[in-house]
Amino acid sequence: MFGDRRRPHPFVEPVDVDPGWRDDGGVRLNVVLVEPEIPQNTGTIARLCAATACVLHLVEPLGFDVSDRTLRRAGLDYWQHVTVFVHESFGALQDAYPGARFWYTSKKARVLYTRARFRPDDFIVFGKETTGLPPDLLDVNSERSLAIPMFGPVRSLNLANAVSIVLYEALRQLRGF
Amino acid sequence: MFGDRRRPHPFVEPVDVDPGWRDDGGVRLNVVLVEPEIPQNTGTIARLCAATACVLHLVEPLGFDVSDRTLRRAGLDYWQHVTVFVHESFGALQDAYPGARFWYTSKKARVLYTRARFRPDDFIVFGKETTGLPPDLLDVNSERSLAIPMFGPVRSLNLANAVSIVLYEALRQLRGF
Repeated sequence: MFGDRRRPHPFVEPVDVDPGWRDDGGVRLNVVLVEPEIPQNTGTIARLCAATACVLHLVEPLGFDVSDRTLRRAGLDYWQHVTVFVHESFGALQDAYPGARFWYTSKKARVLYTRARFRPDDFIVFGKETTGLPPDLLDVNSERSLAIPMFGPVRSLNLANAVSIVLYEALRQLRGF
Repeated sequence: MFGDRRRPHPFVEPVDVDPGWRDDGGVRLNVVLVEPEIPQNTGTIARLCAATACVLHLVEPLGFDVSDRTLRRAGLDYWQHVTVFVHESFGALQDAYPGARFWYTSKKARVLYTRARFRPDDFIVFGKETTGLPPDLLDVNSERSLAIPMFGPVRSLNLANAVSIVLYEALRQLRGF
């Protein structure tokens, strides 16, 4: 059932939070990385999720072993503070959260990420570093596909930076800061 | 004089931009990294600046050689598209831009980064990965010192992610997206 479809990341021990921190019961968002390839990016995004009390979902296949040294180094001591789920496929993730609302990100999308009206518990989905999300997934979800505008001679951002930008815009909206 | 105080990054060749791109004469911001330590972060931030037509300033000493393989790999082919200046000290940078307005970032700051009212040509200053900006610099600039709020058990972000968040908030304000 629910428990079968998602399984905790092997590195997740019972959360041992800083005693100075308590969950404020506030906004929680979900970050989904579909088939991430570069361990350093996933490690950095795990740190971002730990800093924002957001949940990280990784969709297999992953381009690295979860015990990868680079992943752990990039995530430093943060893994134990992040709630991470690994899903066998994106369909399996969707099945596990039947009422969930998904946002998709792509540099080919037409909706600016700042125009989205995020809600608590939304899922924000990011594709793999080399190719992004599958075009068919974006096509059928064009109204929920978000782009980060770029103005320079290069039109591509590092994955972790892109996640940072969209996630903090969502938090800005929802937490009113 | 002006030219003496800042010198182009050795990797900067005459900008060879994508023919499909033209400078829209729009908002330009300055990102300052004071004594950055990790080449991968600086490489990723260079890519971010290339994607947003912003200028990157590096304040020495740098924790890496500018020819570092990691730096170049993280920045991929972006170095040639970024305007980068290397400054001998933060004072030298300030002397080179006498009319400039500076924002400082720190997790100890009291002003939320979203409360800043950014202006074109502003400089946004980030400290080194391990220790951030010097406390005395922040003390005398407390009204211009910005913090990114964090809500989780971990209260620390990767440098490149922090730059992404603040820079895109500034761009969102200034470009109205």
